Amino acid sequence: MRDQWAEKLLAGDRLALARAITWVENEDERGLSLLQEVFPHTGKAWVIGLTGAPGAGKSTLLLRLAEAFSKEDLKVGVVAVDPSSPFTGGALLGDRVRWQRRIAGDIFFRSLASRGRLGGLSRAAYDAIRLMDAAGRQVILVETVGVGQAEVDIMHAAHTVVVVLAPGLGDDIQANKAGIAEIGDIFVVHKADREGASDTARDMRMALGLSPEARGRREGYTPPEEGGPAWFPPVFLVSSLSGKERGLETLMTGLYQHRRYLEARGLFGERVTEEDRRRMEEVLSEEALRWVMERAKEDGTLEEVLEALKRKDVDPRTAARRILGGIGEEKRVP
Amino acid sequence: MRDQWAEKLLAGDRLALARAITWVENEDERGLSLLQEVFPHTGKAWVIGLTGAPGAGKSTLLLRLAEAFSKEDLKVGVVAVDPSSPFTGGALLGDRVRWQRRIAGDIFFRSLASRGRLGGLSRAAYDAIRLMDAAGRQVILVETVGVGQAEVDIMHAAHTVVVVLAPGLGDDIQANKAGIAEIGDIFVVHKADREGASDTARDMRMALGLSPEARGRREGYTPPEEGGPAWFPPVFLVSSLSGKERGLETLMTGLYQHRRYLEARGLFGERVTEEDRRRMEEVLSEEALRWVMERAKEDGTLEEVLEALKRKDVDPRTAARRILGGIGEEKRVP
Repeated sequence: MRDQWAEKLLAGDRLALARAITWVENEDERGLSLLQEVFPHTGKAWVIGLTGAPGAGKSTLLLRLAEAFSKEDLKVGVVAVDPSSPFTGGALLGDRVRWQRRIAGDIFFRSLASRGRLGGLSRAAYDAIRLMDAAGRQVILVETVGVGQAEVDIMHAAHTVVVVLAPGLGDDIQANKAGIAEIGDIFVVHKADREGASDTARDMRMALGLSPEARGRREGYTPPEEGGPAWFPPVFLVSSLSGKERGLETLMTGLYQHRRYLEARGLFGERVTEEDRRRMEEVLSEEALRWVMERAKEDGTLEEVLEALKRKDVDPRTAARRILGGIGEEKRVP
Repeated sequence: MRDQWAEKLLAGDRLALARAITWVENEDERGLSLLQEVFPHTGKAWVIGLTGAPGAGKSTLLLRLAEAFSKEDLKVGVVAVDPSSPFTGGALLGDRVRWQRRIAGDIFFRSLASRGRLGGLSRAAYDAIRLMDAAGRQVILVETVGVGQAEVDIMHAAHTVVVVLAPGLGDDIQANKAGIAEIGDIFVVHKADREGASDTARDMRMALGLSPEARGRREGYTPPEEGGPAWFPPVFLVSSLSGKERGLETLMTGLYQHRRYLEARGLFGERVTEEDRRRMEEVLSEEALRWVMERAKEDGTLEEVLEALKRKDVDPRTAARRILGGIGEEKRVP
């Protein structure tokens, strides 16, 4: 007999979904077993990631996209991911609650803040996406702030990654162009009403042209010589400034084109499986570490090695191998 | 008989140091065994981390600090860490080579770019720091760009963390104040010549005042009730603009005060050991994962579980536990 929360979640109940996400965010067992129960119903949603430098107006663009998709009678989910700090959650969450009031259509909105654990954010985002998927959200927009490792990890969960730029951002961010060229499927120069927007677009197009191998490293990308069709990330100029709106329709068209590209290449489902596998390995490495450490504690290896490390008789790498060595030997003795 | 490279490195040979760092950056076995050999000679250097939002002028400040320390006849090492992207290295490295020409004094400069692996950057940074330490660098300045998880990890390697702010940074960064309050020992409002600098300083002091618990989470911080003395992160106004320099001496004084604080509390060596242990666990979890996966491949569990995952019969967490379950049982069968 199926759990009542699972029933409600699969029926698309918003309260059940909200509660389930809170549970997984807090790594509450109820959330984990609920996710386990509804997991067979995942894999249908189109996950679109928005990332880019602070100040590019990602949140406003996300709001516009959410509305555009809901206008097409699609059930939309939004996962807004706050920076790694456990302290920023409140502030940004506040903003988002305010926008939510302004959103029209069937949109389920959720903001996530890291619990400060390494990987905590990408884990919570993954769980929230799968839960929204199971709850029948057809398009899930995931926004991350910044372009650090955590953000890159979260973008792995997306079918389509939109990198949002804006004219006049700092040098460090400009220097990162070649880097973001790698993670983006679609590039948006936002705040296109501002001076320098077309220069930013030209620079980005150049960066994309100059590093084809960057696109080559993008998971799922197949260069023409391997029987493409290749996907060449477009760069769109978009303005969300009320009165000066432009480019949103073109962006929507680009998004649907990328989805069709993924489906034609059989990558749509593949990316979901890839991400599930990545998630499994993440859990595995944590559990494996815990297991190995317990073993090392039991037979006293850990204490001994830590002492040697403190005396600097061994370096960390050797220390780690010494701990695993013991287990390795035991393994060979059945 | 000691390896010739180890001899040269311990003698402070710059070429040997440069080559050793390239080796560890590429995870070349020669570098790893070299690090292993010279490890007993590490633990003396004072590691100072500089982090903060893009555009705060960290690099310029780092240059000034490097010069100030070398003027005090200290051997200085600089590790400049580029963002997670494997593609940005080149660009930023270029800038840094240009600065290096302008640096006076005995300063060894090295820029690191991630190899794209998760944790690749913090690993390379850790290795570079230990190698510089073994090579007799007395003060090692580590700069990271951005305030993501990778940067936070790298800052764990530092005795003293300097967070660099500047007036007029974006909202997303402002929202992060409470977050960065946690990682900083010393705060610098850079570009103090600019308008709004004192406001930024006041806001930061307020953020620090409002979240004492944030400081409480800072490793090594002991609240007064537990027999302090507590360290209360100061906020300094600094300008590196030539002609308008100010505040650098005060910052230097603050840095030395923090070092004395660490020594008085016995935290100087402790932080080194903590970081060595963290590094050991990092290697352990990778090796443990590899080991567990091999076991799972051998007995066919992996393939079976991956199939179930693809069919969505199991969720990733359950899949991971199923893989570990097999090994767990075997473990109980001696």
